Amino acid sequence: MLTVNAYAAPSATEPLEKTTIERRDVGPHDVLIEIKFAGICHSDIHTVRGDWGQRHYPLVPGHEIAGIVTAVGSEVTKHAVGDRVGVGCMVNSCGHCANCLKGNEQHCLEGNVGTYASLDRDGTLTQGGYSTHVVVAENFVVRIPDALALDVATPLLCAGITTYSPLRRWGVGPGKRVAVVGLGGLGHMAVKIAHALGAEVTVLSQSLKKQEDGLRLGADEYYATAEPETFERLKGTFDVILNTVSAPIDLNAYLGLLATEGAMVCVGAPAEPLPVNAFSLIGGSKTLSGSAIGGIRETQEMLDFCAEHGFGADIEVIPAERINDAYERVLASDVRYRFVIDAATFN
Amino acid sequence: MLTVNAYAAPSATEPLEKTTIERRDVGPHDVLIEIKFAGICHSDIHTVRGDWGQRHYPLVPGHEIAGIVTAVGSEVTKHAVGDRVGVGCMVNSCGHCANCLKGNEQHCLEGNVGTYASLDRDGTLTQGGYSTHVVVAENFVVRIPDALALDVATPLLCAGITTYSPLRRWGVGPGKRVAVVGLGGLGHMAVKIAHALGAEVTVLSQSLKKQEDGLRLGADEYYATAEPETFERLKGTFDVILNTVSAPIDLNAYLGLLATEGAMVCVGAPAEPLPVNAFSLIGGSKTLSGSAIGGIRETQEMLDFCAEHGFGADIEVIPAERINDAYERVLASDVRYRFVIDAATFN
Repeated sequence: MLTVNAYAAPSATEPLEKTTIERRDVGPHDVLIEIKFAGICHSDIHTVRGDWGQRHYPLVPGHEIAGIVTAVGSEVTKHAVGDRVGVGCMVNSCGHCANCLKGNEQHCLEGNVGTYASLDRDGTLTQGGYSTHVVVAENFVVRIPDALALDVATPLLCAGITTYSPLRRWGVGPGKRVAVVGLGGLGHMAVKIAHALGAEVTVLSQSLKKQEDGLRLGADEYYATAEPETFERLKGTFDVILNTVSAPIDLNAYLGLLATEGAMVCVGAPAEPLPVNAFSLIGGSKTLSGSAIGGIRETQEMLDFCAEHGFGADIEVIPAERINDAYERVLASDVRYRFVIDAATFN
Repeated sequence: MLTVNAYAAPSATEPLEKTTIERRDVGPHDVLIEIKFAGICHSDIHTVRGDWGQRHYPLVPGHEIAGIVTAVGSEVTKHAVGDRVGVGCMVNSCGHCANCLKGNEQHCLEGNVGTYASLDRDGTLTQGGYSTHVVVAENFVVRIPDALALDVATPLLCAGITTYSPLRRWGVGPGKRVAVVGLGGLGHMAVKIAHALGAEVTVLSQSLKKQEDGLRLGADEYYATAEPETFERLKGTFDVILNTVSAPIDLNAYLGLLATEGAMVCVGAPAEPLPVNAFSLIGGSKTLSGSAIGGIRETQEMLDFCAEHGFGADIEVIPAERINDAYERVLASDVRYRFVIDAATFN
């Protein structure tokens, strides 16, 4: 066992505070990672606060992890000491179901093991990346290309793959018109990636407040969804709409913006069900879909893609003692576009 | 002008009755069809009764038409006098938009012209197939293969293409598990087609009342959706679910029956919006889609496919004077599985 520094929530209602946690010994297939940066994802807040169900405490969140390998197990072949690596939203899966065999570990039929607040296959509870070190099975560790600085690569492990995977699955590329709903942590990555894939990108945001940013990130157009004429003007326009917003939105209005056989994909999920009019789907043979992160192979592909195109996330690096403030700012949408914690400050 | 016998609704609230209507002269690109059979589709009833908006009366429904060409315009190249032909849900479109050029006339960006109760591009109102003759642009007339009797081919023009198109689009074939929700006019065609495509087919019907029929039509399994254990037992099973039911159903329960990355496609549409939980789509990266009939080229492909596999629809042939009774029986789901009117009885 390895005792390491971390920041944990003592309960659903208390602020995160400095503590120590145990990491398992490095097994034959494990790597030990010295964490350099950990991203703050909106779902950290939902999980910590019990919005998505009761949890065990203390709870260390963090599923955007970048660091350096400092030890490897005897059977490890994929990573070596000194490697720059990342860990995303999951750290284990059964490895033998149809989905795992296809490289879709996120859809493991026995359930993937989340990076924190999940029961691992050995019966222990996982603890996340707000910490100095983590021990992870090598198959769930990806390589961060040299062209990407570790800090800006960190949010790619969740925000990057969550947007890259559906953009690829739904055929985004040259000649395609893509709308990104919401310009937050996920949305800003979606704009960068869709632009790099060669698509024509439109941001649909509540207001024009972040318009300048949106265009700088790679959007060709930017519209305010608070203006009703946006929905008139853009009717039938988009091949793909990626909805990154977790607040309830009028899905039927957005489906009206899809071109024939277009697809709207939700990666943000409001807690309450949203009404869908079947006619919104039948007319134009349209699609409403969802997407959950991506597999390990695809995560590596995404990192290589971002490195090749020379971009990471837009981030604000903070020390650990500002985590609780950062949570409030995330809830107020006051971050451009992802907080990344400097892991040196967990000490 | 050609005056022909027909059955029309004089208003939204009166029964259909015998009348005469005018058909346009056969233009250079038109064919004159002596109708042999006209199918009764549930949407005829919705349209006639004003459920889908106000209409002009008298209204002649009927968008499943099979007959023989008896005259052709001077420029017609696709059909000749004596040909066995069919007409489905549309009789015109702009012909030059991106969708028309792709053969997706049903998605014509200027709006396709419905076979009845629609404004044609020459400003006249279309009247449907409950009639002895119809004049149609040759591009909207398909060939009925010799291997198909005209009566059983008739419902293919709507029920056949409406189910064939989404089954093809969503990759139904050998090794795929498909569920058909509802065993009515559309559902019974979906079962036949999915089975002929080589898929493993399950019928999900309210009760087991039609189980014997379902298995005879080609289903491998048959479950009653009124039994809650059906939704437990079949969790995560299907690659494609084709929903042919227009009544409201619990979409989230059905989405739970989809396998990873599976798609549920609605071709039946309830008037009211249905609640969809985004988590039902995000977990397993699932899809809810809609589909509207199919293009002319695909309609021909479907007819050839059915001919090759030796099946049409299961029908009950009725004389014109029984149309109003048949409407009541359709509304009571008391038809196995499509009424087809013998057009000789319009005289």
